[in-house]
Amino acid sequence: MSDCVFCEIVAGEQSAHHLYEDDRTLAFLDTAPATEGHALVVPKTHHETLTDMPGDLASAVFWTAQRVARGVEDAIEPDGVSVVQSNGAAAGQEIAHAHVHVVPRYEDDDVTLAWPDDAEVDAETARRLREHV
Amino acid sequence: MSDCVFCEIVAGEQSAHHLYEDDRTLAFLDTAPATEGHALVVPKTHHETLTDMPGDLASAVFWTAQRVARGVEDAIEPDGVSVVQSNGAAAGQEIAHAHVHVVPRYEDDDVTLAWPDDAEVDAETARRLREHV
Repeated sequence: MSDCVFCEIVAGEQSAHHLYEDDRTLAFLDTAPATEGHALVVPKTHHETLTDMPGDLASAVFWTAQRVARGVEDAIEPDGVSVVQSNGAAAGQEIAHAHVHVVPRYEDDDVTLAWPDDAEVDAETARRLREHV
Repeated sequence: MSDCVFCEIVAGEQSAHHLYEDDRTLAFLDTAPATEGHALVVPKTHHETLTDMPGDLASAVFWTAQRVARGVEDAIEPDGVSVVQSNGAAAGQEIAHAHVHVVPRYEDDDVTLAWPDDAEVDAETARRLREHV
């Protein structure tokens, strides 16, 4: 898609530090890394969100994310790894081409993944969701 | 595995609000939801982290996560959806059985997924990672 930076990276029109690619996916370093080795995995075709992708493509993207996470563990040996995939501006998505963040984590890093945990689960929500999943 | 709450939920020894299951994966509501409809997807077999799973199982888990995200979008119509998968205590993993959070997001919710973005990417990190990915 024109004006999509990730499509440009896939097409070789924008440079990036490539880590891995196969027929359908590409992994490269985030240009503004949360921590050293912070990588992104994208589908080579343009899809805005996770649910805009065919299921087998989503599987392929996360298969590559797992492969990158393994490489991060082997090469960088962080304390942990976060995998984050954001859909929609409300979720923090900044580039409208689906992407998976693979973020090496450390005990004392400045990454915050937090949410309140004092709400209660309810059966009615489960019932509504079950009809759609 | 004994003493693993997600293995107990898979085995039916602990109750949960199930949303979907297939041969290898199970989706159910998080008991302390960040927002209404916050779901978890787990492999039915015990694996501690993403990289402990065979690649095809990781793909299956995220295929189900996509399916749940679609159901969330249809049933709840949030402003966005966050997918978070945490590996290791440093990444915020609290239960040592790999799981994917599917979190409905809203413009004004209390979920924080944030990291500094003022670091620079470097070619040497890419070189090291490429040898391992």
